[in-house]
Amino acid sequence: MEDQVKRNWDQFLELIRKIGGYNEAVALMHWDLRTGAPRKGVELRSETLGMLSTEMFKLSISEEMGNFIEEFSKPEINEQLDQVSRTIVAECKKEYDHNRKIPADKFKEFAVLSAHAQTLWEEAKENSDFVSFEPSLSKLIVLLKEFIGYWGEKDTRYDTLVDQYEPDMTVAKLDAIFSRLRDRLVPLVKKIEASEHKPETAFLDQLFEQEQQEKFGKFILEQMGYDFEAGRLDESVHPFMIGLNPRDVRITTHYLQDDVTSAVFSSLHEGGHALYEQNIDTSLAGTPLATGTSMGIHESQSRLWENMIGRSRAFWERYYVDLQKHFPQQLANVELEDFYRAINRVENSLIRIEADELTYNLHIIIRYEIEKMLFNEGLEVKDLPRVWNEKYEEYLGLTPPNDGVGVLQDVHWSGGDFGYFASYSLGNMYSAQILHTLRKEMPQMDEYIAAGNLAPIKEWLTDKIYRFGKSVTPAELILRVTGEELTPDYLADYLEEKYTEIYKL
Amino acid sequence: MEDQVKRNWDQFLELIRKIGGYNEAVALMHWDLRTGAPRKGVELRSETLGMLSTEMFKLSISEEMGNFIEEFSKPEINEQLDQVSRTIVAECKKEYDHNRKIPADKFKEFAVLSAHAQTLWEEAKENSDFVSFEPSLSKLIVLLKEFIGYWGEKDTRYDTLVDQYEPDMTVAKLDAIFSRLRDRLVPLVKKIEASEHKPETAFLDQLFEQEQQEKFGKFILEQMGYDFEAGRLDESVHPFMIGLNPRDVRITTHYLQDDVTSAVFSSLHEGGHALYEQNIDTSLAGTPLATGTSMGIHESQSRLWENMIGRSRAFWERYYVDLQKHFPQQLANVELEDFYRAINRVENSLIRIEADELTYNLHIIIRYEIEKMLFNEGLEVKDLPRVWNEKYEEYLGLTPPNDGVGVLQDVHWSGGDFGYFASYSLGNMYSAQILHTLRKEMPQMDEYIAAGNLAPIKEWLTDKIYRFGKSVTPAELILRVTGEELTPDYLADYLEEKYTEIYKL
Repeated sequence: MEDQVKRNWDQFLELIRKIGGYNEAVALMHWDLRTGAPRKGVELRSETLGMLSTEMFKLSISEEMGNFIEEFSKPEINEQLDQVSRTIVAECKKEYDHNRKIPADKFKEFAVLSAHAQTLWEEAKENSDFVSFEPSLSKLIVLLKEFIGYWGEKDTRYDTLVDQYEPDMTVAKLDAIFSRLRDRLVPLVKKIEASEHKPETAFLDQLFEQEQQEKFGKFILEQMGYDFEAGRLDESVHPFMIGLNPRDVRITTHYLQDDVTSAVFSSLHEGGHALYEQNIDTSLAGTPLATGTSMGIHESQSRLWENMIGRSRAFWERYYVDLQKHFPQQLANVELEDFYRAINRVENSLIRIEADELTYNLHIIIRYEIEKMLFNEGLEVKDLPRVWNEKYEEYLGLTPPNDGVGVLQDVHWSGGDFGYFASYSLGNMYSAQILHTLRKEMPQMDEYIAAGNLAPIKEWLTDKIYRFGKSVTPAELILRVTGEELTPDYLADYLEEKYTEIYKL
Repeated sequence: MEDQVKRNWDQFLELIRKIGGYNEAVALMHWDLRTGAPRKGVELRSETLGMLSTEMFKLSISEEMGNFIEEFSKPEINEQLDQVSRTIVAECKKEYDHNRKIPADKFKEFAVLSAHAQTLWEEAKENSDFVSFEPSLSKLIVLLKEFIGYWGEKDTRYDTLVDQYEPDMTVAKLDAIFSRLRDRLVPLVKKIEASEHKPETAFLDQLFEQEQQEKFGKFILEQMGYDFEAGRLDESVHPFMIGLNPRDVRITTHYLQDDVTSAVFSSLHEGGHALYEQNIDTSLAGTPLATGTSMGIHESQSRLWENMIGRSRAFWERYYVDLQKHFPQQLANVELEDFYRAINRVENSLIRIEADELTYNLHIIIRYEIEKMLFNEGLEVKDLPRVWNEKYEEYLGLTPPNDGVGVLQDVHWSGGDFGYFASYSLGNMYSAQILHTLRKEMPQMDEYIAAGNLAPIKEWLTDKIYRFGKSVTPAELILRVTGEELTPDYLADYLEEKYTEIYKL
């Protein structure tokens, strides 16, 4: 690299790290707001969040940024950069082009509004009071539609939103993938419904002391290889993972006294997200590549740990004895096999985050369809609870008794995150495809798990996926790791095999 | 106010609130670093803290700020402002003049260094390892001396530092005040040493469950009127209060299993600081006046609640029964009068924050003298442990067995806060003088306290002190509230009266 190019690059990195610094401050404020910030301070805090987000936004679309991008995009300069540096430039350019189109005051309005809406949502959910949340949600959607106008519609308005979370994914592709998946899963669900070999789950309906749940959750996270010296575990209404920097990756969980499995599997889930972020190569720290390559790939890692490892027979062959030790009164007389079958019961239910691996995809399809309606088909916000309830009746045969366990159950919309939900099912599909390869390359995987030796799995995932962060695209990554493009068949195969055995189909 | 002046003023307020926003972000990061941020994330976090501090600093010395100050300082404009607005301008000007003299890279260096040093200090204190902390401390002092050079020495180098925390206070005045106080307190300490009526304290040396300590501490904070919806209570190595905004004022405490009084009185102490910040008039929010007027006045409020109220007989006439309920095994057979005498024992000791009301001032004088030596008399950092230990032997007849309970015991120096310690004794003196007036104006004060009716005291303090924040100077405030300038005599009177009774002198 020429000396002058090197000097410019260092200045460029300084600008990028400054943006990263704002990002860290904003992330800490979000974490704080959701883990115990005092209620009365929220309004002033939201103003501050808006201000910092605006400053970050201004830098990402600054003339200085524009000049650097132009400079490093010149062929004779660009060829002097290594592959990762080129990807950094491309990522900044994408962000620059994307954000340059939004006026700064609109961006600030969005940041303030979404911070405030998240707080209102928490209360609205608590009180099952959709009406108190509706005006904020409406305003967010109006703003997002304006944003789509600024960005330019892709095939449809909703395509523009989907592309944000899963680059190069389209509504047309998703429709095709989801319909293929649906064609294989619906018959499976029907067969399970008709099965006479339903798991017994009554023993799960007991009180499980929170303190013991906390201890067991921490133990499992340690076993997975979550580094508590580079993260921390807290409580929040809705569990989440947030990476402040690659050495400060925090997770939260939510304890239910009458359901020990909820916190266990949400810890495994957020732990999976966190393993991804904690193991990104340090050379990417402070750059826009120090995160997951897409929401779908991120979700594949949470799903892999939560479901494919965390709900496997091998996993509980090793850890059930520990769970029993934490809850002797509740579980001493419950057999491992009964526990394994119970945590894998399939049952149509109301709450997405409590849903089983199989019907989970129906929860996603409902949200995906509603979001399409909101952005492409003129559905009004006031009609959301009705449409939500109708779809739950249609797809899952259930009507929510109130909006707290219905349309208000998820945090996403309060943050303006429309287009995100599809990622969850994409995550399921990616993870099954990755698992297939992992099993091929590590035939003794189940033995490792059953011996509590999870490190080789974490290492394999780090080597194949985690360390690259966002320096490869999701499509490149899945092709490179598995040798194939994304297909829903591995997920369908996995689920058919697993449930055929459990339900003796 | 003319229209144009009004428009300018609004723009000025926007700039000020932006600075306030950075301040809030930086404060949250500091809080986070001390209440559980993951160890491995600290290095990257320190960089971010440095970046945000630098941005804040740049704004406070920006051309834009300079122009506003110049504009609003013009007599024909200034006279259109109300008193509070004029004080805001004056405060910004003081900050501007002060900071304009420090080069931005020096300021950043200081911010990064002090954030890092605080983390090193925590470990050094834990391991009683001064050597690992020495290089950082040396660098901080070298930088501060450079800063003093930029600011310009007042009477002495150390004067320049003292003035930062207590405006218009000088080393000469402090020498005079401390010597007068010493002349009255030393004989009192001697008499107490000679007394045959020493309190029995053996019953305090028991194990007190942390969970119960936490419950009682929260109860007492609620009784004081600390608003938990505008703050939160956490644990940290060294207790502190930090105001993120006037509706988010956080405190921390530190629980010692073998000393129930430590957490109780540190909660009362930090709670006193917090009451001040929580009750500043909302009209000052986001301006530089939304804080205490000086460190000394701030400390007077923590001391008033910790000692003058919290260690009074009336207070425990009401709350001792609650403490007994929290610790029946430990205290059921201990009489109120014995407890009252025990928490007011006078004893020469090693740890400042555990010291009694009387000898506390000797701890301060040691630090005050050492800081003067560091900045005015060429004491080298490597000699600190030796000088510290010699002075403790000389003033208190004790030599610390290790540096963890010696020179490393306080957080202040690791943050570069030299010149601060004097504020603690100033706080004692202010608080005694304020208490004298409070008693005169509220003769039934002790009855209120004994009835658990602390609200009138909080309201009186809010009305006389809290609500004004930094819109009055400490000297103005003490004169306005008490009708007199600061004198150490009220503190001496208070202590003589209290201990004469307790020790039957």
